[in-house]
Amino acid sequence: MESNRREIEVMANLLSANDVQAAVNREHFLKNKCLAINVIGSPGAGKTSLLEKTLPLLTPDMHVGVIEGDIFTSKDADRIAAHGVPVIQINTGGGCHLDSKMVSKAMPAFNWQATDLMIIENVGNLICPGDFDLGEAFKIIVLSIVEGDDKPAKYPVIFRNAKAVVLNKMDLEAYTDVNMENMRKDILAINPDIQIFEVSCRNGDGLKVWTSWLCQEVKAYQQNRD
Amino acid sequence: MESNRREIEVMANLLSANDVQAAVNREHFLKNKCLAINVIGSPGAGKTSLLEKTLPLLTPDMHVGVIEGDIFTSKDADRIAAHGVPVIQINTGGGCHLDSKMVSKAMPAFNWQATDLMIIENVGNLICPGDFDLGEAFKIIVLSIVEGDDKPAKYPVIFRNAKAVVLNKMDLEAYTDVNMENMRKDILAINPDIQIFEVSCRNGDGLKVWTSWLCQEVKAYQQNRD
Repeated sequence: MESNRREIEVMANLLSANDVQAAVNREHFLKNKCLAINVIGSPGAGKTSLLEKTLPLLTPDMHVGVIEGDIFTSKDADRIAAHGVPVIQINTGGGCHLDSKMVSKAMPAFNWQATDLMIIENVGNLICPGDFDLGEAFKIIVLSIVEGDDKPAKYPVIFRNAKAVVLNKMDLEAYTDVNMENMRKDILAINPDIQIFEVSCRNGDGLKVWTSWLCQEVKAYQQNRD
Repeated sequence: MESNRREIEVMANLLSANDVQAAVNREHFLKNKCLAINVIGSPGAGKTSLLEKTLPLLTPDMHVGVIEGDIFTSKDADRIAAHGVPVIQINTGGGCHLDSKMVSKAMPAFNWQATDLMIIENVGNLICPGDFDLGEAFKIIVLSIVEGDDKPAKYPVIFRNAKAVVLNKMDLEAYTDVNMENMRKDILAINPDIQIFEVSCRNGDGLKVWTSWLCQEVKAYQQNRD
């Protein structure tokens, strides 16, 4: 009992220390009129692929930075760097999520006068990243439809706290048993305000709709700060 | 610094308390000649589907029990119960992995005189479950090949500590860019002793090979205790 209480206390301290730094990060993004988004999804949902396909579609006058979270390797950052976009890789060394302190340590590497959008790709995990505010304006979920239409109901917390969900790998719909109507219904039952995008990073379907929504969000965020 | 040290200490205490209970669970499985396996994989890798397809292929004289770990919902346990197999659902209520204490609490529900194989399906997560020994004989990874061939290198810890990996959704290989040669090479570079099975729960390919290996493992485990 005593040990349980101590564990809960330490977890509460951890989360509260994270929230303090997240507030500092958020203030930094606000001051620099930079929309920061926290991209969350399972391993292989297609988070990095979505970034790779999104970057070339953003208007040329929009300046983007990327923070890549991974347990090990710089595979994802290497893929993003190939697009000529400033990117910093954070390796958690085993940790299952990014936290606000890791993000703050990556910040000095960017030119904030020239960053309109900061995309933070979290570690591949549909659970733990949801508990740690990074100071982002909002969370985006990337879900591969191949994971199955039961996933929103099974991982509701993350869907409840996201502004949008990108349903990826739509090109595989015909080859799986996924029921897209159930998928959409379950997502909206958890979060009626969430935006749902259906895309295929492989064949390009839906990417323009998603990207133009994201551009609108950047503009709206910046106008609100004018 | 002080607070960091305290967090590390509590995490170490947590893991060590888990190991103590895991040893008790392991002794229980040994005493009852029951092979316990810990099945780990991302959300939607096909863990429950693999179980559903495996159960009917096991020899009729093999008695199986299933423990289903999930954050919320009893969706997976309902699917297993439909096969007439004793199943207990553990809901972690937000927690990202099973621990040995949760498993021990589920144990009284089973008839251990008549259980040869206990399949413990962990929470959908390729990271955290790897840190918590449940008392199992060994870990099995289920990986959907649609997640991509870069996953073993990105999540090496879990591959290093597993006895076998079941590469699922092989029926989708032709519709994705996955490179199966790279996948196998990377897995074996991390763990040269791991067994690799390629299956499709959808069309049945490879399931007999996987299931007969599992039956062999049960027999070998029981013979070693005779």
